[in-house]
Amino acid sequence: MHNAHTMNLTAPKQLPKNGMRITPLGGLGEIGRNMTVFEFGGKLLIVDCGVLFPEEHQPGIDVILADFSAIRNRLQDVVGIFLTHGHEDHIGGVPYLLKERRDIPVIGSKLTLAFISAKLQEHRIKPKTITVEGGGTMKLGPFELEFAAVNHSIPDGLAIAIRTAAGLVVATGDFKMDQFPLDNRLTDLRAFGRFGEEGVDLLLSDSTNAEVPGFLASERDLIPAIETVFRTAPRRIIVSSFASHIHRIQQVVDAAHAHGRKVAFVGRSMVRNMGIAVDLGYLTIPRGVLVDFKKLMNTDESKVTLICTGSQGEPMAALARMANGDHQIRLTEGDTVLMASSLIPGNENAIYTIINKLTDLGANVVHKGNAKVHVSGHASAGELVYCYNIMKPRAVMPVHGEAKHLRANGQLAIRTGVAENNVIIAKDGTTVDLVDGVARISGQVSAGLVFVDGQTVGRATEETLGARRQLSEAGVVVVLAIVDPATTTLAEVPEFITRGFIHDVPTLDGAAGVIEKALAAAKKQGRDDVEQLESAIAREVGRHIARTYRREPVVVAVVVDA
Amino acid sequence: MHNAHTMNLTAPKQLPKNGMRITPLGGLGEIGRNMTVFEFGGKLLIVDCGVLFPEEHQPGIDVILADFSAIRNRLQDVVGIFLTHGHEDHIGGVPYLLKERRDIPVIGSKLTLAFISAKLQEHRIKPKTITVEGGGTMKLGPFELEFAAVNHSIPDGLAIAIRTAAGLVVATGDFKMDQFPLDNRLTDLRAFGRFGEEGVDLLLSDSTNAEVPGFLASERDLIPAIETVFRTAPRRIIVSSFASHIHRIQQVVDAAHAHGRKVAFVGRSMVRNMGIAVDLGYLTIPRGVLVDFKKLMNTDESKVTLICTGSQGEPMAALARMANGDHQIRLTEGDTVLMASSLIPGNENAIYTIINKLTDLGANVVHKGNAKVHVSGHASAGELVYCYNIMKPRAVMPVHGEAKHLRANGQLAIRTGVAENNVIIAKDGTTVDLVDGVARISGQVSAGLVFVDGQTVGRATEETLGARRQLSEAGVVVVLAIVDPATTTLAEVPEFITRGFIHDVPTLDGAAGVIEKALAAAKKQGRDDVEQLESAIAREVGRHIARTYRREPVVVAVVVDA
Repeated sequence: MHNAHTMNLTAPKQLPKNGMRITPLGGLGEIGRNMTVFEFGGKLLIVDCGVLFPEEHQPGIDVILADFSAIRNRLQDVVGIFLTHGHEDHIGGVPYLLKERRDIPVIGSKLTLAFISAKLQEHRIKPKTITVEGGGTMKLGPFELEFAAVNHSIPDGLAIAIRTAAGLVVATGDFKMDQFPLDNRLTDLRAFGRFGEEGVDLLLSDSTNAEVPGFLASERDLIPAIETVFRTAPRRIIVSSFASHIHRIQQVVDAAHAHGRKVAFVGRSMVRNMGIAVDLGYLTIPRGVLVDFKKLMNTDESKVTLICTGSQGEPMAALARMANGDHQIRLTEGDTVLMASSLIPGNENAIYTIINKLTDLGANVVHKGNAKVHVSGHASAGELVYCYNIMKPRAVMPVHGEAKHLRANGQLAIRTGVAENNVIIAKDGTTVDLVDGVARISGQVSAGLVFVDGQTVGRATEETLGARRQLSEAGVVVVLAIVDPATTTLAEVPEFITRGFIHDVPTLDGAAGVIEKALAAAKKQGRDDVEQLESAIAREVGRHIARTYRREPVVVAVVVDA
Repeated sequence: MHNAHTMNLTAPKQLPKNGMRITPLGGLGEIGRNMTVFEFGGKLLIVDCGVLFPEEHQPGIDVILADFSAIRNRLQDVVGIFLTHGHEDHIGGVPYLLKERRDIPVIGSKLTLAFISAKLQEHRIKPKTITVEGGGTMKLGPFELEFAAVNHSIPDGLAIAIRTAAGLVVATGDFKMDQFPLDNRLTDLRAFGRFGEEGVDLLLSDSTNAEVPGFLASERDLIPAIETVFRTAPRRIIVSSFASHIHRIQQVVDAAHAHGRKVAFVGRSMVRNMGIAVDLGYLTIPRGVLVDFKKLMNTDESKVTLICTGSQGEPMAALARMANGDHQIRLTEGDTVLMASSLIPGNENAIYTIINKLTDLGANVVHKGNAKVHVSGHASAGELVYCYNIMKPRAVMPVHGEAKHLRANGQLAIRTGVAENNVIIAKDGTTVDLVDGVARISGQVSAGLVFVDGQTVGRATEETLGARRQLSEAGVVVVLAIVDPATTTLAEVPEFITRGFIHDVPTLDGAAGVIEKALAAAKKQGRDDVEQLESAIAREVGRHIARTYRREPVVVAVVVDA
């Protein structure tokens, strides 16, 4: 494989006139933050602009964006941003990009644009949108685009074919190949076949499930487990799911209707998205089934279905609040909770905690671990191989996945006959140039993580997080030293204030001698202004604590002249 | 079910003379920290004393112990502690218990005692031990004990039957029922049958896999996947596993030998435990196969197998250090890493990070997610049902598991015919009294989490962790206020020092007015000693920051008289 990780990469040279440069700015080596820039003839086309959700070692961070710095000086050259589908990891960064240039045209399917428009409205941005559909084509600057329907865990996904003089590049977006999709909108293998006959020079292909052998079950295969819940639940049924998984929710609504239950949506994003889905015809709710959840409080409990957010254990979502007894809806013995969703790696602990709390409340919790209530939204190895074989791409660049997924997907491509050195394992920021029909890694641009923290973008850094991690491990010790400026010695007994540090203040008093020594040494070196004294004290007290307690709290010294 | 969670429990009344009290002090509602106290005739028998490993929301904590306070005043009544097997979650707390009373007899199988003795030696404790084996019996105070072999993911596990005038109680310990165990030591179903014929009044049964339908594969069923690795790996093979999973390691050693590879152990606990296992005859290494890993550095790489620690992503273990390029052993393209281990919930992120880093280095990583390289150590539902049916216990108390596991195990018991109100869902500290052959919840004793943090036991509290979590979310802001004591007003511009907080110090200067107001209000209320001023300033600056930035750092105010 042509592997960016084992190469020494520098900034790429100028792109040849008839070449296309493909630069993934996020989504390689991670699930999330998907963003790819296609450059041709001096113009840029962006495909997707998502967010990544932080992990535990990134405390206090709301979301993580791709680094726009590689294109920041060229925003006027951007001819448009195409969104493959409406998931956060593909659209969540759009508001931040549009804040840098408001009039970038946003292109996508009807549902995708409805979801991004609702999100942009919260940011008070009214985007310039262009609605497209599977089979459609459009010319955007030097790019000839064609769209192909793909099936995924949100309706109305699109793959994109990009034609320029450099060749034909296809990006699948997130997709799978459910052969019995609820909306009968299949992944358009015929289009993939036509692209293949024309000759695909480079395929960017979804890697998420490349390690999973075989084929996914169909969304419809969840019917038996959902039916079992509705047939046997004695009291209320509470269903949690992603607020964008319209087909999953359609199945729940249909089961509720069949069993004479009412349905209410709970949670702001669920209510908003299902409103959009009903308005646009993506979700069909039989007359009389949908009611406001407050009305359900007095309804016969065996006639109640609540559909809520929080399937990933998000602490502020409806399900977590129910589990904590912190929601209007109080769960009790006999209630059934159906978690009809995936278990995204990293969320397991939060989800298990909620399952256990719900169980403690007496609820019967049906989840992925004990019933067939979820299928993935991403093609398994068997499906990926179908795509490679019908498209026969000359080169393949696995995208949307961690390193192990990219590698596994690359190996599938090789098994279908793609030449080994035409399988390109890039990382975020790796530039891949398609010149004379041959795709090669050409360099590396900046593509670090950009943290959104409160109202700031990019202000929190790895250094900030390093300090937070240190604070969380051992807390903070504040040292107040009243220093006689004439002698640079302590004028009073030093004070210690601690938070999150377990050793009592009195036990720190032994540090007074350490402080005197630090002061004397600083004076001797002539490094004795207040800031220098503070850093000397902090350093020496930190060492003293590490030696004594084998713990490394953050030490902040405050020096005040006596 | 007889569910402690839905009852209002108070301290239990005195135990009737011929009754037995069973008090789980850990292991219910969590995987870990297993400890159960059996009381009869004024004497106490302890079964297991393990640790629980902290989760992300418990930063800086080394391990978590059971709360010994319920038995602290009765340590002289303890006739012994029986250890079912040698895993940390069953033995890790023993050193801390023995520090409270050194001469408590420690009872267990040969391997279990070898492992706990090695651990106690590190704590400079020489325990009083009694070695027992499957089929053996002993009298310990008023308790008549009988032991039965069980199969688990560590050799030499034992179930225990406890006979008193109160009846017959059986505790399975952690177990499964591999019908083709590597050491041919089957879980002793015959003994379970004999106990059943005698009449089991209460069964404490392992719940970990009660939600998993069917039967586990055999340890031997991993041979094909392990063989594939050894047949195809072009260069070095690095195997990670638990340092106690002797049978897994035996299989790797056998495969290495069959393929003409040498084996070296890497990592302190791996080297120590495998030394014990070889010495006691639990691990067989053909002559000439084992070498010191430093010798392997210059050996033909296709002849090398390294067996190391770190299968759970532990950051200081050998595998993580190799992944970070921070170990003598430098992995490169063509090396194969076999992670022959489970993926303990909560460790996923750490493990996936390592897999991805190893993949980036060019290694082929074979793990549970892409090959059959692991079977669990805990009986699945099918196996548990066999036990219920052969033992026909009158009452069942599911143990070793989270709430969902306990509930699922209870439901299995009910399906085999155990009366619903004889299935006892206890929580940590719930006392269960067996009187006249009937087991009933009788009350609740203290059973909180006891944190080991550095050299301290029980000093870190939930409050400490709350402060650490707050610090990790938004950092710390130290405010230095030089106050004129005559007027209780600021004598100088206040100083702000921040760590892990993202807003620059200058932007905090607006807080000076807030500080003046806080000082004025404190003065007016007569609450104006230094500590009161500090807490008033911290509170108001905290509110100011929350209003302004929607972030809640820890605020520490230091007031110094001008």
